[in-house]
Amino acid sequence: MILEIPVHLRWSDMDAYGHVNNVEFLRLLEQARISAFWHVEGRTDAPGTAILDASGAAGLVTLVARQEIEYLAPLEYHPEPIIVKLWLAHLGGASIDVCYEVCDTARTKTYARAVTTLVLIDTATSSPRRIGPREREAWEPYVGEPIKFRRRA
Amino acid sequence: MILEIPVHLRWSDMDAYGHVNNVEFLRLLEQARISAFWHVEGRTDAPGTAILDASGAAGLVTLVARQEIEYLAPLEYHPEPIIVKLWLAHLGGASIDVCYEVCDTARTKTYARAVTTLVLIDTATSSPRRIGPREREAWEPYVGEPIKFRRRA
Amino acid sequence: MILEIPVHLRWSDMDAYGHVNNVEFLRLLEQARISAFWHVEGRTDAPGTAILDASGAAGLVTLVARQEIEYLAPLEYHPEPIIVKLWLAHLGGASIDVCYEVCDTARTKTYARAVTTLVLIDTATSSPRRIGPREREAWEPYVGEPIKFRRRA
Amino acid sequence: MILEIPVHLRWSDMDAYGHVNNVEFLRLLEQARISAFWHVEGRTDAPGTAILDASGAAGLVTLVARQEIEYLAPLEYHPEPIIVKLWLAHLGGASIDVCYEVCDTARTKTYARAVTTLVLIDTATSSPRRIGPREREAWEPYVGEPIKFRRRA
Repeated sequence: MILEIPVHLRWSDMDAYGHVNNVEFLRLLEQARISAFWHVEGRTDAPGTAILDASGAAGLVTLVARQEIEYLAPLEYHPEPIIVKLWLAHLGGASIDVCYEVCDTARTKTYARAVTTLVLIDTATSSPRRIGPREREAWEPYVGEPIKFRRRA
Repeated sequence: MILEIPVHLRWSDMDAYGHVNNVEFLRLLEQARISAFWHVEGRTDAPGTAILDASGAAGLVTLVARQEIEYLAPLEYHPEPIIVKLWLAHLGGASIDVCYEVCDTARTKTYARAVTTLVLIDTATSSPRRIGPREREAWEPYVGEPIKFRRRA
Repeated sequence: MILEIPVHLRWSDMDAYGHVNNVEFLRLLEQARISAFWHVEGRTDAPGTAILDASGAAGLVTLVARQEIEYLAPLEYHPEPIIVKLWLAHLGGASIDVCYEVCDTARTKTYARAVTTLVLIDTATSSPRRIGPREREAWEPYVGEPIKFRRRA
Repeated sequence: MILEIPVHLRWSDMDAYGHVNNVEFLRLLEQARISAFWHVEGRTDAPGTAILDASGAAGLVTLVARQEIEYLAPLEYHPEPIIVKLWLAHLGGASIDVCYEVCDTARTKTYARAVTTLVLIDTATSSPRRIGPREREAWEPYVGEPIKFRRRA
């Protein structure tokens, strides 16, 4: 399953070239990730929307270990949100890969594809911890194909 | 040759976790890249500082095609700048790889390593253009080893 | 009439204190202003939503001359948008005051109130220009009371 | 006495109009304020540089209650820092006004003037606290004239 998360652009996402800045793309991905994993008490979302929160009210604490992104088309500010397709590509012992494709609302244009490796953190010790069984169960339906990057050297 | 470019942190680079945000790291790299490539009329820098500008007063227009970053240690705001070691790793037909290591001023700690692939743009046609002989000559002394990323799947 | 414009927070709006940063509040106001004034071809909005665009497809070019803001309550990131109440307080010869109150979706809590003075710019000459009759007609229904700031020295 | 604090611009401070964005001006002021008040253990600065830290290693916790800014001239990114002249204008019971003028390095051009009202916070109770005698003594040499804003309605 692939989540489709609308993220609203801000006019300030554009830089002096008049396009959404390449760094801001990662800000949009961060926001999509937050939307997917954010714990809301009593959440009863339909499947496919924001059910990646599997950690209870304590929230999930993660650390970004790695990111990779390819930019495919320039994006300008517009009032309607962009759509971030989000899925998981790898459930390791203590880490997961979050994959993204940034699309327009019609899903006909892809602006970027990217991956973020998250390491799960034990807040008591501040060190990595293993994925729990409840998390693994919640996340497995969202595991899909890893992204094939074209421009990797 | 490796450039060493000081970049000043801002307190606002930190996020709610109290560390320089992972996305802001790419903002610091962008700023190091701007410092390296920014054209200053009459510049007479010593070798090793900001001589990557090889395009004359018109400036160099590039497009970011790809980025990859690994985070090695958390970074907190402090008044002294961080040092971004910057070199080139690949001079293609129309693209270059800019490599970075983010260090403390003592060069004893590495916070992140990253690469950005830039495509050169012809401003008249807005399409990619080949690296010119003057640029190739200016850049070749800065070509070094590509970064070996450890966490790549 | 007062516009009520939802603006989506981003997790990154928070600073190291864990609250939406005071500078980011002005970013939220900027985005509300953009939403109100942004020209969309063929727009048929209901009254009270985003009909401040009165300039045709060329868009309205303005310059921010002044801002004033009072912070009333701390704001934390949450998934639902904040509501920016927006109205005009002064139609001068070449400038307008845009007034804001930042509220929660229930309109029971006010986080900040602010004003921005915009000067209209003639793009041909880059100098201020007078408000046109079409603009004045479109904007007058939205003129209300100026904000009474409590903390002004 | 007036502090003169260099703040480095970032290319990303510019918006799609190619000027340092009006909201980013307040980010530059925040950074100047941080530089002035940031506690550095063993600091032996010359007078006039960053001696506003008067709170010991615990640091000074403040809350921004109000800001006002007038923009006087457009600012573009350039490699040399801007200079933020910073002084205090009002030592109240529990609050201070921080005043700023944003200038070029030659001090011949003023881009903006602004004021921030800070309320001192007791971290134990999270409520306002009175200025202590040590703080008052450290700050009084920096108290000067309040800013006369020209565009206030």
